[in-house]
Amino acid sequence: MTKHSPRHIRLTSHPGHGPRTSPEIHWDAPDAQHRGPIVGTTLNRAQRNVIGTHSGSYSVYRALAVAAGALDPTHRADLTNTAPTDLIGPYPQWSEPGRIVSLDPWGAAVADVFADQIAAGIDIRPTIAVTKAHIELPEIRDAIAAGRLKPDGKILLDNGSACVTKAAVEPVWWLPGVAKRFGCTETELRRILFEETGGMYPELVTRSDLEVFLPPIGGQTVYILGNPRDLANPEVPLTARVHDECNGSDVFGSDICTCRPYLTHAIEECIRGAQATEAGGLGGVGLIVYSRKEGRALGEVTKFLVYNARKRQVGGDSADKYFLRTECVAGVQDMRFQELMPDVLHWLGIRKIHRLVSMSNMKFDAMVESGIEIGERVPIPDDLIPADAKVEIEAKMAAGYFTDGRVPDGEALAAVKGRGLE
Amino acid sequence: MTKHSPRHIRLTSHPGHGPRTSPEIHWDAPDAQHRGPIVGTTLNRAQRNVIGTHSGSYSVYRALAVAAGALDPTHRADLTNTAPTDLIGPYPQWSEPGRIVSLDPWGAAVADVFADQIAAGIDIRPTIAVTKAHIELPEIRDAIAAGRLKPDGKILLDNGSACVTKAAVEPVWWLPGVAKRFGCTETELRRILFEETGGMYPELVTRSDLEVFLPPIGGQTVYILGNPRDLANPEVPLTARVHDECNGSDVFGSDICTCRPYLTHAIEECIRGAQATEAGGLGGVGLIVYSRKEGRALGEVTKFLVYNARKRQVGGDSADKYFLRTECVAGVQDMRFQELMPDVLHWLGIRKIHRLVSMSNMKFDAMVESGIEIGERVPIPDDLIPADAKVEIEAKMAAGYFTDGRVPDGEALAAVKGRGLE
Repeated sequence: MTKHSPRHIRLTSHPGHGPRTSPEIHWDAPDAQHRGPIVGTTLNRAQRNVIGTHSGSYSVYRALAVAAGALDPTHRADLTNTAPTDLIGPYPQWSEPGRIVSLDPWGAAVADVFADQIAAGIDIRPTIAVTKAHIELPEIRDAIAAGRLKPDGKILLDNGSACVTKAAVEPVWWLPGVAKRFGCTETELRRILFEETGGMYPELVTRSDLEVFLPPIGGQTVYILGNPRDLANPEVPLTARVHDECNGSDVFGSDICTCRPYLTHAIEECIRGAQATEAGGLGGVGLIVYSRKEGRALGEVTKFLVYNARKRQVGGDSADKYFLRTECVAGVQDMRFQELMPDVLHWLGIRKIHRLVSMSNMKFDAMVESGIEIGERVPIPDDLIPADAKVEIEAKMAAGYFTDGRVPDGEALAAVKGRGLE
Repeated sequence: MTKHSPRHIRLTSHPGHGPRTSPEIHWDAPDAQHRGPIVGTTLNRAQRNVIGTHSGSYSVYRALAVAAGALDPTHRADLTNTAPTDLIGPYPQWSEPGRIVSLDPWGAAVADVFADQIAAGIDIRPTIAVTKAHIELPEIRDAIAAGRLKPDGKILLDNGSACVTKAAVEPVWWLPGVAKRFGCTETELRRILFEETGGMYPELVTRSDLEVFLPPIGGQTVYILGNPRDLANPEVPLTARVHDECNGSDVFGSDICTCRPYLTHAIEECIRGAQATEAGGLGGVGLIVYSRKEGRALGEVTKFLVYNARKRQVGGDSADKYFLRTECVAGVQDMRFQELMPDVLHWLGIRKIHRLVSMSNMKFDAMVESGIEIGERVPIPDDLIPADAKVEIEAKMAAGYFTDGRVPDGEALAAVKGRGLE
């Protein structure tokens, strides 16, 4: 069929439409060839073996680019020189049944492991990219000035830059495995994904033979301090934080939550951990995972509605009603579903996190349940908690967040108040 | 139909299915009642008058919450106390034909202007939320320490916090208007949006009677320093930056681009502008618009692939090949489409930006073309450009970015080199 032919639009597809010519996917297969490539191309329908397409929600912008005449819809990515700067894996976790269900562990290496298929004309694209960067944060410069961090010329440079390996990871959902994580049947998951989004991707219900979905959502970014291969060695001390996006704090420093202070504290801890000398060499590794789940994956509009409801309720913003206000607006306290989060850790080969810079019991539980050993847990230092963020952190501590000992009771919670709106 | 009935799944809908009972939308109507509410609910199919659903890409997480049994799919948001802290508009721009096509200007005020319909049982949700916040940035504390900013107790507090009004804005696309902006027919736009996303929302092609689409993409956040109503008064000096998301720099301070330094410089300029005393009072206003368009709306995987291709090409990373490398991988230099960006400015009633803290000719052109007058343009100070970001900024200056005078020629461009990967 000609691209964008006005003559015929196929609204959905069905398994019975002729012989299937696209590569097969065997999700838990032991190597790339048996697993098979993920093909989400829009160039050639016959090659596709997934529901959805690449780039997460940016697929909509790609479509706009075609509509505007700026992008030739037949453009095929030239992947020259784009290969990962660092080889991640393969690790045994990649093919352990059900260990990874929401990303493609081979997604960074497609140009290498599927070179034959690409040469044969199949449009296979990376769903993961790995590069090197220098990062400069004012908080790290402050830590150097205060003597808490010392440049070593390798992990932390004299100008205050930290050297990282970083990876961007797009979501690739193996629907049978995702359903299992959430305790529902695959059929239920497919139907609910279709209906609760207002009818996105009918192939979710018509194509039970297509088991992989590239959802139009944000992905994850991984920042590694030290040697990425050390992540998979449980003997090398690993300092890690798994951080969920909060644009208002991460970028703009809103004082209603602890997100940026905890993140920059974690980066400081990761640098120190990666610098740690054992047996005379650089003996540690640090990791930050940043997940695009704004406002507990409720989105920023809901988040701001909840802020207003918290600050205007009778008695004002208080820790004892913190979760209730989110639930009234959103129907749930949280939609982040840490159940999928450990996948990225298994992609990196992680077996043990020696120092986890997080107080979240949901993150901790999800990691432990997925088989990762956790050593020490590092809470945010009290002096980094903004005044207006006490409401949130105290409410979370009462609800099961890790603490050094103190757990606020009902009376104490009611006494923790936030600022009003004016 | 019962929610999630296993008996029958409707793959798409057609205009002919019985009498339409949902509220009508007349996009450019002069007032809210004639315009009609946007109804993207998944609770009651008969009420819907749009394609897609609320919360942008987070609708997928909402579906997961239902699949996991954590969210009752019949939950209806309790909007008590969530109303905007500040009334934005209505402004004449809201109903000028084609002035706003990618957001709902009434989206913050639904609980007020559509109170009757909500009382009658229609599930109308805000697509915009407006709240107050205090923001604390290390760069602003540095500006105070250096004497460049002085706390005034109102806009900028003694502790370094700046007081803002902020709004989260979800995309609401009126398809006839979006098509016109991109110079294609509505039919083409609908078909391409459907096909180039791998078959998202067949209603794009089956329901030409539904003119509004809630796309599963990220939205915008607006930060206002000073009185939001002053934005609409061209006599009040307005300092503004329209910033496109770059997580690697905005949050992590990657030194390959100027994003965070330019953003924090703009916040400093906005504070100073909002503090400006005219006729004895606080006489200015500042605005930052933050748009979720990671990596020029190509997404972060593509961005990192391009970084590798730039740094590995023959001759290394150089300004004369800066755009070429993106084009080889992505097929275009940029997918941000500033054509839709001015909508948020018109929502705020803006007629004139006195100081635009941006060098982008694409943003400038889009604003001017949409009828906004621009006074001075403020480039990023040279001392804020990270060393490895010279490649990008010089390439952009040669390609049309605003400069104070110097425009690098081909030879000069070839001489601007970035760091290698090791």
